[in-house]
Amino acid sequence: MSGIVPVILCGGSGTRLWPRSRAAKPKPFLPLVGESTLFEATLLRCADSAQFAPPLVVAGAAHLAHVESQAPTARVIVEPEAKNTAAAIALAALRLPGDAVMLVCPSDHHIADCEAFARAAAAAADLAREGWLVAFGIAAKSPETGFGYIKRGEALDGGYRVERFVEKPDLATAESFLAEGGYSWNGGLFAFRADTYLEELETHRPALARAVREAVEKGREDDARFHPDAAAFARIEGESVDYAVMEETSRAAMVPADMGWSDIGNWPALRDARGADADGNVVHGPAELVDCRNVMVESDGPRVSVIGLDDVVIVVDGGEVLVTTAAGAQKVGKLSGAVNQ
Amino acid sequence: MSGIVPVILCGGSGTRLWPRSRAAKPKPFLPLVGESTLFEATLLRCADSAQFAPPLVVAGAAHLAHVESQAPTARVIVEPEAKNTAAAIALAALRLPGDAVMLVCPSDHHIADCEAFARAAAAAADLAREGWLVAFGIAAKSPETGFGYIKRGEALDGGYRVERFVEKPDLATAESFLAEGGYSWNGGLFAFRADTYLEELETHRPALARAVREAVEKGREDDARFHPDAAAFARIEGESVDYAVMEETSRAAMVPADMGWSDIGNWPALRDARGADADGNVVHGPAELVDCRNVMVESDGPRVSVIGLDDVVIVVDGGEVLVTTAAGAQKVGKLSGAVNQ
Repeated sequence: MSGIVPVILCGGSGTRLWPRSRAAKPKPFLPLVGESTLFEATLLRCADSAQFAPPLVVAGAAHLAHVESQAPTARVIVEPEAKNTAAAIALAALRLPGDAVMLVCPSDHHIADCEAFARAAAAAADLAREGWLVAFGIAAKSPETGFGYIKRGEALDGGYRVERFVEKPDLATAESFLAEGGYSWNGGLFAFRADTYLEELETHRPALARAVREAVEKGREDDARFHPDAAAFARIEGESVDYAVMEETSRAAMVPADMGWSDIGNWPALRDARGADADGNVVHGPAELVDCRNVMVESDGPRVSVIGLDDVVIVVDGGEVLVTTAAGAQKVGKLSGAVNQ
Repeated sequence: MSGIVPVILCGGSGTRLWPRSRAAKPKPFLPLVGESTLFEATLLRCADSAQFAPPLVVAGAAHLAHVESQAPTARVIVEPEAKNTAAAIALAALRLPGDAVMLVCPSDHHIADCEAFARAAAAAADLAREGWLVAFGIAAKSPETGFGYIKRGEALDGGYRVERFVEKPDLATAESFLAEGGYSWNGGLFAFRADTYLEELETHRPALARAVREAVEKGREDDARFHPDAAAFARIEGESVDYAVMEETSRAAMVPADMGWSDIGNWPALRDARGADADGNVVHGPAELVDCRNVMVESDGPRVSVIGLDDVVIVVDGGEVLVTTAAGAQKVGKLSGAVNQ
């Protein structure tokens, strides 16, 4: 039995953690939690050769230099343009043997408990080998409205059938999910055999499947890089794997994963993923905090002096200064500094 | 009748408006409200030769370059060291004819209504000529606990006797003053004849008066500068004019002054002295504010992006970043950045 193939997706435009993350150097390639970048940490979680095969990275051309600098030996599929996850995963599936078990991992999430991740990956791979399309069901810790949810159905060996996927809910709905139980967050981690995935894609999105297949057939290799054909790839209508496959298939399963997961989707999420002091403050860089609670300071040089604030994030990076309430942080990506990079 | 002599006092250590004001360039010499510096605006208010004689500036050696750059023609008394206002005013009094009417003005206050200032100065000078020591009684707009108060007594021609001076009160006391009426803020502006002031100083603080007189007698002229003798001046025990003279004399009077006065004593005071937009925000420098109210941004270059805050001051200056609630701004002078300049 060959190892699970980690398929690492590197996308994202780098606006929600602006000004620390930028279009030119987005979130996966920054050391946001600990010493490793999120991308490096993603690779490290899948580095045990007893469980995993070498990874396959799918990345845009704009990020190729970051990928190759942080993962010099990895095979990389270079996307001519961003076409969302259904196509990115299909590219990888077509470059692997049909019976390969793929473990699809976003490259910009944080997972605190790597052993729990490895256990969930093993359980997901076992179900994938049986022909299931397996989503990780992240233990829902709070009624988040920014994530999709997975309702679990009947038990399988090591997991559950998916009863249904739920779009990002409103707060009342999210609260009812937590009260009711049986719901998990959809964290964007998936496991399936390459051939299973391609079969389902062809069934539910035949045009998309055809265009990706043509892009691969007409693509060219360049050492460890593979370049799909740009013209064929351009015809793809981008869609997420959730919409195109997971919500369509009758073979969706989930494995529960309680592993300290965070998508680091905004500044407060990063604050929470880092260790706070007794007052809840999290400081990177030179700073003095007086009468502050739950304040995050991130500075690439200038000293930041803060008095009297609660639940506020302050970021100084590359000559930009951001000050936002935790609640306001969801609007960071709309700031003109973030939009006009 | 010769004109009133403006005596402009330049002191202060520049910590309360840190990081914009620094020890090397304190508050009077910065253009904090409008185009002029506070010092320049102080001189401009006393520039009408129909009412005022040329000014006499009292400043520390450390600030001489700023004084001479912003007031090239002014006569300057260069204090060898800071010895508080009783001594500074005595230096000026000893360098003037005995019948000169002095108008003592701090150099770091803002006065919005210059005509009201001129009217109050005229009324104060009239009382001073009659032998009164006259304080400006600033119309008290709120129960401030950071100012001394003046209780007015019987009416005089153009003013009132001072019934008593009150130290900085607690909030309940300040509120009772406003409810009761008859109390004004003590803004540190005074008028008196030079000889009256010196007589009172000699009566109530003879050692101080003697030391200042010796410092002046042994001093030396250097064009427009006068340097008091450093050794004699060093013996002075520094005291404010309020303690040393105004609270002691039986000849204290006050003139009411409702002139849009502010001591710009902290960042929120500066915010209030400037014009705010409809949301109460005051922005100097490149900034984007989203969902903000009563936010002040002051930046010397870097863009400042702010989301969701209320009643917060953000200052970026010389590589330092300050973020404080309005209430916390009173602690700015205690920050290590402000203390260890």
